[in-house]
Amino acid sequence: MDEHLDWYPGRSVLVTGGLGFIGSNLALTLDALGARVTIVDSSIPGLGANRFNVEGLSDRSQVAAVDLRDTAALAPLLAGQDCIFNLAGQASHIDSMTDPLADLDLNGRAQLCLLEAVRASGLRPRVIFASTRQVYGRPERLPATEDHPVRPTDINGIHKQAAEHYHRLFHEVYEVPTVVLRLANVYGPRQLMRGRGQGFIPIFVRTAMEDGTLSLFGGGHQERDANYVDDVVDAFLRCGPPTGAAPGSTYNLGAEPPFTLRSFAKTLVAIAGAGTLANVEWPADRALIDVGSVSTDHSSITADLGWKPTWSLADGLEATVAYYRLHGRHYW
Amino acid sequence: MDEHLDWYPGRSVLVTGGLGFIGSNLALTLDALGARVTIVDSSIPGLGANRFNVEGLSDRSQVAAVDLRDTAALAPLLAGQDCIFNLAGQASHIDSMTDPLADLDLNGRAQLCLLEAVRASGLRPRVIFASTRQVYGRPERLPATEDHPVRPTDINGIHKQAAEHYHRLFHEVYEVPTVVLRLANVYGPRQLMRGRGQGFIPIFVRTAMEDGTLSLFGGGHQERDANYVDDVVDAFLRCGPPTGAAPGSTYNLGAEPPFTLRSFAKTLVAIAGAGTLANVEWPADRALIDVGSVSTDHSSITADLGWKPTWSLADGLEATVAYYRLHGRHYW
Repeated sequence: MDEHLDWYPGRSVLVTGGLGFIGSNLALTLDALGARVTIVDSSIPGLGANRFNVEGLSDRSQVAAVDLRDTAALAPLLAGQDCIFNLAGQASHIDSMTDPLADLDLNGRAQLCLLEAVRASGLRPRVIFASTRQVYGRPERLPATEDHPVRPTDINGIHKQAAEHYHRLFHEVYEVPTVVLRLANVYGPRQLMRGRGQGFIPIFVRTAMEDGTLSLFGGGHQERDANYVDDVVDAFLRCGPPTGAAPGSTYNLGAEPPFTLRSFAKTLVAIAGAGTLANVEWPADRALIDVGSVSTDHSSITADLGWKPTWSLADGLEATVAYYRLHGRHYW
Repeated sequence: MDEHLDWYPGRSVLVTGGLGFIGSNLALTLDALGARVTIVDSSIPGLGANRFNVEGLSDRSQVAAVDLRDTAALAPLLAGQDCIFNLAGQASHIDSMTDPLADLDLNGRAQLCLLEAVRASGLRPRVIFASTRQVYGRPERLPATEDHPVRPTDINGIHKQAAEHYHRLFHEVYEVPTVVLRLANVYGPRQLMRGRGQGFIPIFVRTAMEDGTLSLFGGGHQERDANYVDDVVDAFLRCGPPTGAAPGSTYNLGAEPPFTLRSFAKTLVAIAGAGTLANVEWPADRALIDVGSVSTDHSSITADLGWKPTWSLADGLEATVAYYRLHGRHYW
């Protein structure tokens, strides 16, 4: 079941975006498994980097304050790496519409710089790229499988899709063993909880815990599925070893059953013991890029790598609320 | 048949990349039809801009030496435009692999800057974008239709695909009426004839006319289809009027029957009365990104807009060779 974990002790692994939400959870797990972790993070404000996220990292591991676009600083960090977990980027869909050129730099140019640096190094570490099911846009069928047409509804999705193509191309042309994971909504400890640019989950969690009003756009009837961050970390861990995913693969993550945003909010309010729900009109800028109901089929990574989500929504939200009760001051 | 041409007299139209190969042929035709043409061209060396290309442009029309990424200079040029023919870009597949970041700037960032400038202007001119069938990569079936999966085999194709998505998105979100044309190989007068970064046609034409040796990689058995530039100009002209292509449309161009590179070379050598053929090994860098045999189905634009190629390969090559016999010194 978990023999993929045996590969990590003593390995050198690089985590881009490793001070961010998913990256830091992954880096801490890798460190605990006995890997030598190099975190690369530009710490650009608003993208989720948080030094508190990696409290407790062992002396074996290190944090490099390097932007992927700074090739001269990045190149020496690539030496000796067995695997690169590539989670750097800008995740806000709404911010990508407000400043599409910034999104191009952070999700396009930065990825191309990283892959070019790998190519130039002559080394061929695995590169596991964190993409998003947002590339599907408004799905024609649910749950969306990996061969669903790609029609992103925002700039962020376009650039994540371009970065997926970069990874595929560098595998096909330069034999860099790359794997793409298309993440569903993700929640849990160490998430960016500030700012209007985030997804609904951090906004809801914080609002509920502050006993505020959770705004359900259009009544909150649209469906989503979401993974607790530990399940996402497990998916990355399964892709790292050479015995993991075949290079060039693309896998959906996801969870069932899907839930409506309304039922999510109700579960959360019950767990937090605070917060109230309110139906509100769709804000114009969000309605334009909203994807409607979305859920993704993850049977392909289950079949190939044995991954499946193990956290229920209720358990995940329980753990999430407990974390921010303890550490909220580092995130609020 | 040609009532779309009646729309142009007195119209204001902008042609990006209008000093380049297809852009200049289009600009001259628009000018001759009585439109006021504004050519926007950055004249970056190596991309095909050539002042000689627009010799004979009337006083009604103008050339603006502006880079699309220079928003401050671009914005005033957008005022009053009825249509934007968007042909700016870097077309070399091999150069996109040598310098992917430059390709990102020229085919990604520049396109996003143009569309952002249109959005910010509050104007909603039609935008007709010159993409490429290279986005299909190595086709799974021939001829490729517009719904063929997109799997570009080089960086250029990835960025052209991203730019297609930008155009679609700006239509869906901001109601800019955009249309995408996926061009096949194109040949004819005013093409960039220098440099190793170009497609096979300019290299073959120049080599034949200089009585040199036309190198057929792997024997030249791969198939292509190609449009004489006047047919491509006609496709753009059909998309400009509001009665033309539905906003959000994507159309293949192309021609039948497809030909092998070998038969193309033989036809060309016969017409030029010079040149010899030679089989050579595939150069490694080109083999890696070659797409094999490619042809595209253009029945969709025929059905919707009445476009079809009218030039045979022999007639087109005759006209091409005649043009460079007269004007070769401006291109060699």
